[in-house]
Amino acid sequence: MRIIVFGGDGFCGWPTALHLSHLGHDIVIVDNLSRRDIDNELETNSLTPIATPSVRIKAWKELTGKTIEFVNFNIAKEYDRLLHVFYHYKPDAIVHFAEQRAAPYSMKSERQKRYTVDNNLNATHNLLCAIVDANQDVHVIHLGTMGVYGYGTAGMKIPEGYLRVQVVNDVGEVSEREILHPANPGSIYHLTKTQDQLFFAYYNKNDGIRVTDLHQGIVWGTNTQETSMDERLINRFDYDGDYGTVLNRFLIQAAVGHPLTVHGTGGQTRAFIHIQDTVKCIELALANPPERGSRVKILNQMTETHRVRDLAKMVSEMIGVPVEFMKNPRFEADENELHVDNRTFLQMGLNPITLNKGLLMEVHEVAAKYRHRCDKDKIPARSLWRR
Amino acid sequence: MRIIVFGGDGFCGWPTALHLSHLGHDIVIVDNLSRRDIDNELETNSLTPIATPSVRIKAWKELTGKTIEFVNFNIAKEYDRLLHVFYHYKPDAIVHFAEQRAAPYSMKSERQKRYTVDNNLNATHNLLCAIVDANQDVHVIHLGTMGVYGYGTAGMKIPEGYLRVQVVNDVGEVSEREILHPANPGSIYHLTKTQDQLFFAYYNKNDGIRVTDLHQGIVWGTNTQETSMDERLINRFDYDGDYGTVLNRFLIQAAVGHPLTVHGTGGQTRAFIHIQDTVKCIELALANPPERGSRVKILNQMTETHRVRDLAKMVSEMIGVPVEFMKNPRFEADENELHVDNRTFLQMGLNPITLNKGLLMEVHEVAAKYRHRCDKDKIPARSLWRR
Repeated sequence: MRIIVFGGDGFCGWPTALHLSHLGHDIVIVDNLSRRDIDNELETNSLTPIATPSVRIKAWKELTGKTIEFVNFNIAKEYDRLLHVFYHYKPDAIVHFAEQRAAPYSMKSERQKRYTVDNNLNATHNLLCAIVDANQDVHVIHLGTMGVYGYGTAGMKIPEGYLRVQVVNDVGEVSEREILHPANPGSIYHLTKTQDQLFFAYYNKNDGIRVTDLHQGIVWGTNTQETSMDERLINRFDYDGDYGTVLNRFLIQAAVGHPLTVHGTGGQTRAFIHIQDTVKCIELALANPPERGSRVKILNQMTETHRVRDLAKMVSEMIGVPVEFMKNPRFEADENELHVDNRTFLQMGLNPITLNKGLLMEVHEVAAKYRHRCDKDKIPARSLWRR
Repeated sequence: MRIIVFGGDGFCGWPTALHLSHLGHDIVIVDNLSRRDIDNELETNSLTPIATPSVRIKAWKELTGKTIEFVNFNIAKEYDRLLHVFYHYKPDAIVHFAEQRAAPYSMKSERQKRYTVDNNLNATHNLLCAIVDANQDVHVIHLGTMGVYGYGTAGMKIPEGYLRVQVVNDVGEVSEREILHPANPGSIYHLTKTQDQLFFAYYNKNDGIRVTDLHQGIVWGTNTQETSMDERLINRFDYDGDYGTVLNRFLIQAAVGHPLTVHGTGGQTRAFIHIQDTVKCIELALANPPERGSRVKILNQMTETHRVRDLAKMVSEMIGVPVEFMKNPRFEADENELHVDNRTFLQMGLNPITLNKGLLMEVHEVAAKYRHRCDKDKIPARSLWRR
């Protein structure tokens, strides 16, 4: 298949591009390198020394003989180039990672709030609009987030996108319907993903666009089979308070001897997935597109749930660093339960990689190897949810 | 009260600004005159000879002694000026009409789709973001649309924004919740209003912003008590296939002797409200803000429902022009029932102006008076919903 990976230079995008190329697909990356620019803005960096796109692609060609093309532009702003890319490459499928993806960054100040809204919504809409405009039959795979659901549904397993409800009408008749799960986003970033869902539902209904929306948990780990092949292919490792995801942040904190900083009581239960499973899930989603004429296919892309304080305890015991509880900068419940239905990927053949000491040590070793590149001042989360 | 009317030069905005000024409020209009620019783009015009903002405001001052201020900029793009306006005027409330509001225009081509999304979503988000940024306590009144609900709910009265549903969990326990009514937009324009709802819910939850969202029916009529005072205050009258609303279009068609063009079977049932009631509803919404700490207040702003073919028949019999059925350019159900709960405005004291021959004749007379300004080629609807 010919596949365009939008946002193919990022943390999930780059390993996905390599994995799909490795499987024999014809890969084009479109990326404006905004994630690297945001590192400049935040005066931070990937812990791992990521190579430039050209060096990455050249290394991949040397190692595998496979070509990945790269086009640098902003899909949220440069619609004419986007349309040209569709006409030129005629993709069978696209994978859409081209959104600002950090909740704390999206809450930093009005500048980042407005950037996240403007970038994410126009990016998603331009993609859908261009597919209609170019009159092409393209399977759209989008990275959503578990955060669209919120975490307040006591005793309810979070379904895969749609919720079955009963409604009573004025004369007392009960009818059943399946609706898009009500949105309950916890940040501006998560909000944009709930708005993306409405774009997908509309373009699916009006124009018949086939969409798979993947509500992903928090990704941990850093390398995949492909990115491990050569240091020039190494994936990003974000450790800063905005972009570093919780488990990865614990592992770098452990590697530099910093206490593991837990927000609030650490009673937040979250869904997790290893980066290797992320790329496997995209492979499975591509191989199992929604049928023509069917509604948006929504899958929960996660493999396990953990409480944050339990993760901290695990890392603390493993490496021998203390845990430190701090005031939660986020506006969220201190404690929550979380049960998630993820049966579709399991039925498609996903064999989950779950948290284990071996893999945690592997990530810890990456963190330890590059700890000289770490600016400890960047580790604490500083974005506040409310004044 | 000090009130900023965003989009205060438009069809609903201008009569609202005058009405609130007449009531003694201190009014500032912010508008980039985009609606006038779109007339240029579509090579059409208001049937009525609307004056420039300066002439309008000068006439109002002459007639009433009251000052309306006017600031011309684009709130979707010029955030610094927007923030300045909040700091400078310190409004108690704002009325937000500053969105592209025609469904057919939003479906014309990718250019108008993208403009509608970019303009409407950034405008709404910038307003909310600026209120948080300026740390002000402002009641936000927004014009939504009945179209957020869709029209497919057989036997169900459309509630005011929230739907009570029952959910069964994994062990068979039934729980009840009230959710935002599931969105089912019929065009890109309507889609943006469903996405606006998610902005409001989020900023209400995270930042405590007080919002009233008014889901308005199709507006008919052209003048209000205030706009009728002087020809320089006259309101717009859109008769073109994109911006002309259905009943107003029938009345201009009748005035120029054009058959009344009904899309499909005309079995579409829609909600209506007279422009005089629109301004009254805004007055009532301002006087009844949501309590601090409460959720977004959502009201249905409509007074009656009619089938399109019945309206055509009424106008046809009244003026003596034939009805012509044409292929429906929209992608929508040919026939639907519609029952709407509008009790809140009635409880607040709205005394609905319903369709009657006297008022229809009044609008017809306006249409007849200015029919020499009508370009008949612009009357048919030409935007197609699907390729």
